[in-house]
Amino acid sequence: MTYKTSVKIRLHLNDKVALGPGKADLLEAIKQHGSISAAGRAMNMSYKRAWDLVNIMNESFAKPIVLTVKGGSHGGGAEVTELGKQVLAQYRQAQLQAEKAIEHEMLSLSHQLTD
Amino acid sequence: MTYKTSVKIRLHLNDKVALGPGKADLLEAIKQHGSISAAGRAMNMSYKRAWDLVNIMNESFAKPIVLTVKGGSHGGGAEVTELGKQVLAQYRQAQLQAEKAIEHEMLSLSHQLTD
Repeated sequence: MTYKTSVKIRLHLNDKVALGPGKADLLEAIKQHGSISAAGRAMNMSYKRAWDLVNIMNESFAKPIVLTVKGGSHGGGAEVTELGKQVLAQYRQAQLQAEKAIEHEMLSLSHQLTD
Repeated sequence: MTYKTSVKIRLHLNDKVALGPGKADLLEAIKQHGSISAAGRAMNMSYKRAWDLVNIMNESFAKPIVLTVKGGSHGGGAEVTELGKQVLAQYRQAQLQAEKAIEHEMLSLSHQLTD
C-alpha cells in the first residue's frame, strides 16, 4: 500500500481565495518564468485563468503581489513583488508547520489502513 | 474585510482518498442520523454518492468504518464502528493541530490583506 497525507491551506477574503495551493504554485512559476503567460503554460493553465488568479491576489492584498511590465506581443514580463515573495514564503512556512503538526496523528491513522 | 483560514487534510491510499473533509462529515452525519441515506440527505448528497464514500472508507481501512443493518425500504440503519469513531476522532484532532500550528503565520499573513 502507498499512502500519503495532503494538507491544503487557503486564506479566504470575503468570498474569494486570496491565497491557496494553486495561487502559491502560480507565484513560484511567475518567479521562475518571469511572465504570467509562461507561468500559466508551465502549469497547464489558460492565460485567462492565470491572469484571473493574479488579479484576485493583487486585489486581495493591500499592495500588489505581481507587477507586470508592458511590451511584446503577449503582455511582456511579470515579477513577483517583495510583498509577494514574503506572502509566498509565509504560506509555505504555514504549510510546513501544518504538515509537521499532524505528522504523528496521520502516521497513527495510516496504521489503520488496509495492507 | 472578513478573512478566514481553511485547512483541508486528506489521507490518500493509492489513488483514493481514504479520509478527507467530506468523508469525515459523512461519518458525523451517520453517527447522528443512524443511516447512510439520511446522512446523505442531510448533507445534500445523493444516496449513491454517500454509499460510494462509505465503500471507499470500508475498503481503505483494515476493518469496517461503517456497518449497515439490513431492513426497511431503503437499506435499514447504519452505524459508525469503534474503529470509525477512533479514525474520525484522530482526523479531527489532526485538523485542530494543523489549525493551531498555522494560526500565528496566517494571522500575520492576514495583516497584509486589503482593508
